[in-house]
Amino acid sequence: MISVPTRAIRPACPPFPGATPAEPGTPADFVVVGVPYGSPYRMSGVHSDAANAPAKFRERAATRFAEHGNRYDFALGGTMLGDTGCTLIDVGDLDGDPRDIDGNGRAATAFLAGIVSRGGVPLVLGGDDSVPILLARAFEAASPRVNVLQIDAHIDFADVVGGIDDGYSSPVRRIREMPWIGQIVQVGARGTGSATPQDLTDAVAAGNLLFPAASVHQNGIETVLEAMDTTLPWLITLDVDGLDPTIAPGTSCPLPGGLSYLQAETLLSAFGDRHRLAAIDVVEHFPGLDIRDTTSLTLARLLATLIGRSARQKGSR
Amino acid sequence: MISVPTRAIRPACPPFPGATPAEPGTPADFVVVGVPYGSPYRMSGVHSDAANAPAKFRERAATRFAEHGNRYDFALGGTMLGDTGCTLIDVGDLDGDPRDIDGNGRAATAFLAGIVSRGGVPLVLGGDDSVPILLARAFEAASPRVNVLQIDAHIDFADVVGGIDDGYSSPVRRIREMPWIGQIVQVGARGTGSATPQDLTDAVAAGNLLFPAASVHQNGIETVLEAMDTTLPWLITLDVDGLDPTIAPGTSCPLPGGLSYLQAETLLSAFGDRHRLAAIDVVEHFPGLDIRDTTSLTLARLLATLIGRSARQKGSR
Amino acid sequence: MISVPTRAIRPACPPFPGATPAEPGTPADFVVVGVPYGSPYRMSGVHSDAANAPAKFRERAATRFAEHGNRYDFALGGTMLGDTGCTLIDVGDLDGDPRDIDGNGRAATAFLAGIVSRGGVPLVLGGDDSVPILLARAFEAASPRVNVLQIDAHIDFADVVGGIDDGYSSPVRRIREMPWIGQIVQVGARGTGSATPQDLTDAVAAGNLLFPAASVHQNGIETVLEAMDTTLPWLITLDVDGLDPTIAPGTSCPLPGGLSYLQAETLLSAFGDRHRLAAIDVVEHFPGLDIRDTTSLTLARLLATLIGRSARQKGSR
Amino acid sequence: MISVPTRAIRPACPPFPGATPAEPGTPADFVVVGVPYGSPYRMSGVHSDAANAPAKFRERAATRFAEHGNRYDFALGGTMLGDTGCTLIDVGDLDGDPRDIDGNGRAATAFLAGIVSRGGVPLVLGGDDSVPILLARAFEAASPRVNVLQIDAHIDFADVVGGIDDGYSSPVRRIREMPWIGQIVQVGARGTGSATPQDLTDAVAAGNLLFPAASVHQNGIETVLEAMDTTLPWLITLDVDGLDPTIAPGTSCPLPGGLSYLQAETLLSAFGDRHRLAAIDVVEHFPGLDIRDTTSLTLARLLATLIGRSARQKGSR
Amino acid sequence: MISVPTRAIRPACPPFPGATPAEPGTPADFVVVGVPYGSPYRMSGVHSDAANAPAKFRERAATRFAEHGNRYDFALGGTMLGDTGCTLIDVGDLDGDPRDIDGNGRAATAFLAGIVSRGGVPLVLGGDDSVPILLARAFEAASPRVNVLQIDAHIDFADVVGGIDDGYSSPVRRIREMPWIGQIVQVGARGTGSATPQDLTDAVAAGNLLFPAASVHQNGIETVLEAMDTTLPWLITLDVDGLDPTIAPGTSCPLPGGLSYLQAETLLSAFGDRHRLAAIDVVEHFPGLDIRDTTSLTLARLLATLIGRSARQKGSR
Amino acid sequence: MISVPTRAIRPACPPFPGATPAEPGTPADFVVVGVPYGSPYRMSGVHSDAANAPAKFRERAATRFAEHGNRYDFALGGTMLGDTGCTLIDVGDLDGDPRDIDGNGRAATAFLAGIVSRGGVPLVLGGDDSVPILLARAFEAASPRVNVLQIDAHIDFADVVGGIDDGYSSPVRRIREMPWIGQIVQVGARGTGSATPQDLTDAVAAGNLLFPAASVHQNGIETVLEAMDTTLPWLITLDVDGLDPTIAPGTSCPLPGGLSYLQAETLLSAFGDRHRLAAIDVVEHFPGLDIRDTTSLTLARLLATLIGRSARQKGSR
Repeated sequence: MISVPTRAIRPACPPFPGATPAEPGTPADFVVVGVPYGSPYRMSGVHSDAANAPAKFRERAATRFAEHGNRYDFALGGTMLGDTGCTLIDVGDLDGDPRDIDGNGRAATAFLAGIVSRGGVPLVLGGDDSVPILLARAFEAASPRVNVLQIDAHIDFADVVGGIDDGYSSPVRRIREMPWIGQIVQVGARGTGSATPQDLTDAVAAGNLLFPAASVHQNGIETVLEAMDTTLPWLITLDVDGLDPTIAPGTSCPLPGGLSYLQAETLLSAFGDRHRLAAIDVVEHFPGLDIRDTTSLTLARLLATLIGRSARQKGSR
Repeated sequence: MISVPTRAIRPACPPFPGATPAEPGTPADFVVVGVPYGSPYRMSGVHSDAANAPAKFRERAATRFAEHGNRYDFALGGTMLGDTGCTLIDVGDLDGDPRDIDGNGRAATAFLAGIVSRGGVPLVLGGDDSVPILLARAFEAASPRVNVLQIDAHIDFADVVGGIDDGYSSPVRRIREMPWIGQIVQVGARGTGSATPQDLTDAVAAGNLLFPAASVHQNGIETVLEAMDTTLPWLITLDVDGLDPTIAPGTSCPLPGGLSYLQAETLLSAFGDRHRLAAIDVVEHFPGLDIRDTTSLTLARLLATLIGRSARQKGSR
Repeated sequence: MISVPTRAIRPACPPFPGATPAEPGTPADFVVVGVPYGSPYRMSGVHSDAANAPAKFRERAATRFAEHGNRYDFALGGTMLGDTGCTLIDVGDLDGDPRDIDGNGRAATAFLAGIVSRGGVPLVLGGDDSVPILLARAFEAASPRVNVLQIDAHIDFADVVGGIDDGYSSPVRRIREMPWIGQIVQVGARGTGSATPQDLTDAVAAGNLLFPAASVHQNGIETVLEAMDTTLPWLITLDVDGLDPTIAPGTSCPLPGGLSYLQAETLLSAFGDRHRLAAIDVVEHFPGLDIRDTTSLTLARLLATLIGRSARQKGSR
Repeated sequence: MISVPTRAIRPACPPFPGATPAEPGTPADFVVVGVPYGSPYRMSGVHSDAANAPAKFRERAATRFAEHGNRYDFALGGTMLGDTGCTLIDVGDLDGDPRDIDGNGRAATAFLAGIVSRGGVPLVLGGDDSVPILLARAFEAASPRVNVLQIDAHIDFADVVGGIDDGYSSPVRRIREMPWIGQIVQVGARGTGSATPQDLTDAVAAGNLLFPAASVHQNGIETVLEAMDTTLPWLITLDVDGLDPTIAPGTSCPLPGGLSYLQAETLLSAFGDRHRLAAIDVVEHFPGLDIRDTTSLTLARLLATLIGRSARQKGSR
Repeated sequence: MISVPTRAIRPACPPFPGATPAEPGTPADFVVVGVPYGSPYRMSGVHSDAANAPAKFRERAATRFAEHGNRYDFALGGTMLGDTGCTLIDVGDLDGDPRDIDGNGRAATAFLAGIVSRGGVPLVLGGDDSVPILLARAFEAASPRVNVLQIDAHIDFADVVGGIDDGYSSPVRRIREMPWIGQIVQVGARGTGSATPQDLTDAVAAGNLLFPAASVHQNGIETVLEAMDTTLPWLITLDVDGLDPTIAPGTSCPLPGGLSYLQAETLLSAFGDRHRLAAIDVVEHFPGLDIRDTTSLTLARLLATLIGRSARQKGSR
Repeated sequence: MISVPTRAIRPACPPFPGATPAEPGTPADFVVVGVPYGSPYRMSGVHSDAANAPAKFRERAATRFAEHGNRYDFALGGTMLGDTGCTLIDVGDLDGDPRDIDGNGRAATAFLAGIVSRGGVPLVLGGDDSVPILLARAFEAASPRVNVLQIDAHIDFADVVGGIDDGYSSPVRRIREMPWIGQIVQVGARGTGSATPQDLTDAVAAGNLLFPAASVHQNGIETVLEAMDTTLPWLITLDVDGLDPTIAPGTSCPLPGGLSYLQAETLLSAFGDRHRLAAIDVVEHFPGLDIRDTTSLTLARLLATLIGRSARQKGSR
């Protein structure tokens, strides 16, 4: 395990709905942790509004769902964890040192690798889209390898932007370079974004499977699921802008034509039934841009569905 | 008829689009009436924002549709009431006495029973989800019995909450106990809500037909219509959260994945063609949570469609 | 060419994403121009919020898309203009004289006719729904005739309203009277609006092909495309309220049940592949009513798709 | 009396607090009338937000004060009109024809002259700062002459702006040219505004008495009162920006350092005691820029104080 | 002590800045307690926005001042409680039963009497302006008698309104009738409000000393202090609308011309030096109407000043 | 001159009203420059909303004042620079490197020292309250020494906070330690803030002259001016919270009872007449917290007054 010392942790108050607040290091099946800080391009990116997402999201989700922990969930056919015996904890948010941006990133990766080494599934609340790199690095020592499912309006395959190679435009290219990563499936690309024509060519050449949003709308979300490997566990990286702005407006680059709630729920729900979850991050959630908590509501329901389905699958193993 | 004296009425200003303002007691085919007050759990529930809905909804609907009373409606193939000869009046809102909560409820039921006894169809603007109980009680002396169609994200089958057995978590259970109620069909349940696993078991055991939102999305709204009895008239109780938040955000418990506008319009439109309408209530509309009148717009169009279709069916009898 | 002198032009700052700022009179394949002023019914209509749309829309679109001019667009399979050789310029907004309303209209028509005479496709940013009349008049001297595709919640077939015969309720009736207009296809009508039953009868009698929104939802947007003539070029008039309010709330008469983003994109995308574009106007965009730039985002993407597809088709001719 | 035909009037709904709604032409001591339209420089000035002020102001004032008509007013030592026997009516708002800007102005002047000729004091709700010219012209045939008290952050002594000589930058210069106007007192000038150094020189040369805001703060508002002629009646023109933005933020050019509420109330209150009121206009109120009705509240109280004091003085004559 | 059973208490979270959270019944020098519910006139008055004030005010005050408990306060020349040895606790908010309005009031009075009987000074966070009656009744068994200082834009001397004699228009009349109340001083009346001319006559006849706002502005706040009895302790009732709207906009009836911050601070500061504080209530704070927490900020500073000064005076006894 | 390389500069667009955009290094009498970045305590402090102030303030000020560059200013008795011959330029904003916080500070100081060495008066738009340290350091090589006038609600005399000794709580203590600083005058302290009792003791012991807000309100702002040395030039550091929240709400720690507009204008105006200006910074302006541009308006007027008066004094030397 990496020896970089853990930075300060801010406890989650309130915790993610249904999760138990816990100290860092506590073993559990699912571990919610906020990773607000990644690799910024500019001063304004050190603590963009996405860094407020972990705390704001929990607060908003708790307002809606906190009291419903023991309620019947129609998406699961029972309560969230039911009788799976799985445990869900929330260890709070990683803090950072404004004078050591890169050290913050190393500490985050070390922290996440610790969760993985204890057999936990990190549920990472970002942060901008440079955070997935920190998460993927946490699997360097993991066995077996992990696949990556990216849900995003953009393919994020830029190389170096303004001298930075691990910023929010580059996560999939950087992850693709990690030898411990298997299949990469990219869902939801549409319109214009961070991709030059060359980026797209590179991503395809690298073997990534692309399911642009238009293809999902035309052929159905099931085509994605059918293409996904079932032997390795998956790291899911969910950029909020992969979803349609009508259900997830709280992001900095909303684009019409994204995944509908039904498509996203079907994808994560069926994923939970058939595939193994290694980790998930939710990034590019800008809570200050949300419209009456719509994004938090959507994310809370999608995560509850994924956790519940994964717990049932895990419990049945 | 019940002898509880009628409480004060606040006239509707402006009236529901297309309705004629009228004195309480005036006979008419369709009678719009606001019932802002039900059975609160807490002090803050005596006059929650849902109690502002009747007046706010009329005001917003009038801004959009007041001048269009005589316009061609594509949902109806003519003007709202066309040449059906039906009458539509708006008698205003029931007021209440802050020191007699339960008396207010009895007065509301008596008032609604009066409309029914004069052959009218009450179009009830709630109020929270305890109001349907007051409406269903108004049919105690009615003949024939009535069925109930509930559109809601929640099954509302709690028994006693905080010592109160007729609050907004219990309407379907209470209505189920009324001997003058026939079939109960519940559409739109999803996610988590007021239901414990036992509540769900009880609702199914009681014979209620459940069409969760997921089933509607998968099998089509027509499956609901096909399951509905055609012999008895129907009381429709429309909780705003049964609809998808993208078309009806103005409610206290929005949940993604609800009925789309197309599904709701198809349901009410086909209902109007094939079934008899005994009454409808619209509840849990929190106008202070709406986003630029979206909810009022959706509700106004759905009610216009239901009224117009029902009037045509009634006129053809 | 009409000899009415051109009124003052306000330069576009910033220009439409991907367009080059240019002087009026510059020849180009596609010419963005704001026409904020039409024929008002009332004092408040002289400069309604729709008159702010050209500047506000460009400003908002630039925030989102300005830097993406050279990016890969998944809707086009390349950059916006790719290697079509087509040119896209933005000449700014027509100004007006508050003491000469009708002269402003004549000047706008003359200006647009100038673009047409130089072989350009005007991309007109309105303005209210009286602007399409000014645009259609610009084709009086054009050869061949042009067809008209209207996307709108209303059929706009009123005759004279308050003494005015060319206001926002009458554009399609006025355009229908112009001998140089061929087929008229109207898509998206629903609910109530400016149409009396007689207006509808007249529109049908005049030979207009109507595809109400309900018909699009039931039969698919392809049925519209199949009915559209392929011999003449088309003037598209896109009233923002033809789109569903969830994707285009920034309009004065939003109505649920409109065209979804997928339907609109499919329509304009396939149009670009198969039909010739003579001009397009976007009207009834009220930026002050928008919800977090949603409408601008939708319009910017639809226009980019239409321009890109039309450029490819034009380039291949 | 001028023979220009009166344009349409929109009735005041609700009326100014304490006023009786009345038909145009009804004789009364004080006549509230909205004059939303003056002489615009640009298209956007034809119906700027200031044109919404009459209706919005009445609506907001009514929410606060409507029910207090018969209440004791500490600023007056009794009810508003007390036992003065004076009458106060509200005749609504003048409408306009968008195709006849100058005719609208002539009609407004004719209408106001009618009030004056019937012995009434017009209480004019503007409109932008070109409206005072229309009001002052209404006194052409009046006897005796009238003085003018301007409360404004700007001296409004520009000559011709963009070809227009009677727009909102020129009222005091235009009024100064009217032979039937006596003394002109200007209170509240500060910071920068519409004045060039030459404008200021001209205003002083024309004999206007200037009391810049700084002079009022230093020497007291009483110095203004002492300088005011007591032989002729006064036309007061109150530009909202003359007041401090903390009490009147709803204007397009707020400037810190304006008259405080205490100064304004003292000025109008003492004016009412000692001077005769010929007319007052309130202009440059932009209700869309107000902060929680602050400006309406301030204006309603100032007008009530002025009316009540003037009524008492008039009643005692 | 009165035997009415205490209703449920909601703990304060966070507590008032500088106060220690404590169980009801804990003895202390100063006891913060929320009393959200008084005697409503209407259904909407049972839980008006004023009932949200205790929780919202604490939350907002804590955001600003929580960390400053041990900081030097320039208004006090030291920390809030300094070395006075005084204790300050916050016992939370009284809850209510929606079906027993009058019982809620009796329970509140009993609760407050308990604080008084233990030697504590209740710092009551209302609620509307009917709450002072509940507080004043708590002194029935107190010895010696207490005087009352009311700061309010209205004299609140109505008798019976809509059948209710202890609503928010009547507190001073009801308190005047209590034999255990000594001098009543009323500061800040202005404009129009709840007073008829007869109410004013009655208040003066009852011996109340009135210092309308105009008198304070003209003669100085010291004139009030000089008129206040120094032998008996004082109950202060602070209606938020007594303050000027620029410093306290969060109230339902703001009126320009109220006490400035300097006047209010001087009044409470000098009061704390010279007079004994028996209790204070802060009422008519509508947090939903506040503008960026301005009202909470003003109130928090005024209360800190009053507590600190009173503690110093008490500590020196 | 310090050899730290200058970081990138973002040009001012639009420039400060009345200033000419210019390249860094251009000599001028007054040089506007944005210094958004200081020494943060936390990640969220690297780019707090105060870092948006330079751009937002210019944008808002330009909306109000841009066109008035040549207008008569009542605060100056002429145009801003009149015939003083002084020059005013705006060189834009210093950018920063997110991975070199301390280097950013050194670069800012070097940049400011460059302005000073060319004889210019830096007009610094911050940034938080750690920026004054960077500005004061720029005078290390200046001759003669400079005095410091701080306008602030807090005395900012903390030593080390969370390991940081040059954050926003410490500027006056750090500046006091600089041997090239003469007299320090602190105006506006009130309420609670960053000061412990020991901080206050230290500040007084260090010889700082303190004029708490209460003393200004009681004794007049002239007492401050009289105490200020007239031999050395002055660096003014204006923390927005020194002003009253009614005129400057856009700050993170608003406190009632601050300097009124009249007091601030009198202070800066008389300062300009009698004292020499070496530099000024405006810090702790949080534009996202402003209420309808009130703060920008106040600051723009105060700076215009200071510049104009200083230019006149400078011109007359």
